[in-house]
Amino acid sequence: MKFSPLVQELIDSLRCLSGVGAKTAQRMAFHLLERNRHGGMKLSDALGRAMDSIGHCQKCRNFTEQDLCDICQSPKRQLAEIICIVESPADVIAIEQTGEFTGQYFVLMGHLSPIDGIGPDDLGLDTLAKHLASGQYKEMILATNPTVEGEATAHYIADLARESQVSVSRIAHGVPVGGELEYVDGNTLSHALSGRKNYSA
Amino acid sequence: MKFSPLVQELIDSLRCLSGVGAKTAQRMAFHLLERNRHGGMKLSDALGRAMDSIGHCQKCRNFTEQDLCDICQSPKRQLAEIICIVESPADVIAIEQTGEFTGQYFVLMGHLSPIDGIGPDDLGLDTLAKHLASGQYKEMILATNPTVEGEATAHYIADLARESQVSVSRIAHGVPVGGELEYVDGNTLSHALSGRKNYSA
Repeated sequence: MKFSPLVQELIDSLRCLSGVGAKTAQRMAFHLLERNRHGGMKLSDALGRAMDSIGHCQKCRNFTEQDLCDICQSPKRQLAEIICIVESPADVIAIEQTGEFTGQYFVLMGHLSPIDGIGPDDLGLDTLAKHLASGQYKEMILATNPTVEGEATAHYIADLARESQVSVSRIAHGVPVGGELEYVDGNTLSHALSGRKNYSA
Repeated sequence: MKFSPLVQELIDSLRCLSGVGAKTAQRMAFHLLERNRHGGMKLSDALGRAMDSIGHCQKCRNFTEQDLCDICQSPKRQLAEIICIVESPADVIAIEQTGEFTGQYFVLMGHLSPIDGIGPDDLGLDTLAKHLASGQYKEMILATNPTVEGEATAHYIADLARESQVSVSRIAHGVPVGGELEYVDGNTLSHALSGRKNYSA
């Protein structure tokens, strides 16, 4: 005994969303059917259009429905001499929100992970190599995540940049602002110590 | 700074799913765009058709895309003299899987909850009253959840049945099979004691 065919199909389809199992999919389906048909229709429409027309920016690989994303289209940014390498579109938003960075981005859409079969080509590193060889950039900031995979990816890309005359920097690791030393893990603290700076009041 | 308009629209639309907040919606959208476009298209299609054509069974109020659900269409079940009242379609599946019940169902699609503005009409109790008045049923099993709202709803429906000559029963509350007495809460245990049965080996 199962639900009616279409209800079952809806529940099964919802499981393609990351982190959604059988019970959650069932709860979502009932919620939409019983309380939010309008939202369900809107979601169906947005999903269809998004899957159909969102691609990657030809320059920075970020998600966009145009050929170039808004940042790459901006005339100011096009002349930038700094390029910042991040793992995901959410990282671009996070850095943009600081208001500190006015250069260009390159979005890897992941990190090197040989065990999952994700190699340099999947991260668009051939495109990045061309960007670096163009001579436009003076500095490349590696802003991949401070995880094992993120560090490995940063190392690989740094090697890539050595061939072209681009100076390479890595975002600082250390104690988060507003944190308490007591609760910071040892690894972070040793990074904070080794990365200490001259203190000028 | 936000994502491109269509990406942002997809993220916002995903938030109509129950239990999905801003960060989860973002993760889901990126996962679909990067790793599962085919699944996303299928979901969009299933959602659209489901929102459009799934309605309620005219007899038992369960979700179905036909006028009557499979159970209500079954010739054997149509002559049943027992009707079982449950809160949700998932409860129908749970009871069907026991294989113990061959009567009809009536799905309330919720429980009485004056604070949320859910009254007898929203649960289709007028339809249920007509079913009971038809004289087909000899027994009604109240299988609403053993929660405060479920018990209140059961009480209300029992009152409804008193007018027509239908005997009313409630599913047994007690110690779950395979559980250990030590870990069962006091309320359940007192139900188990007061509901004790003659033991015949």
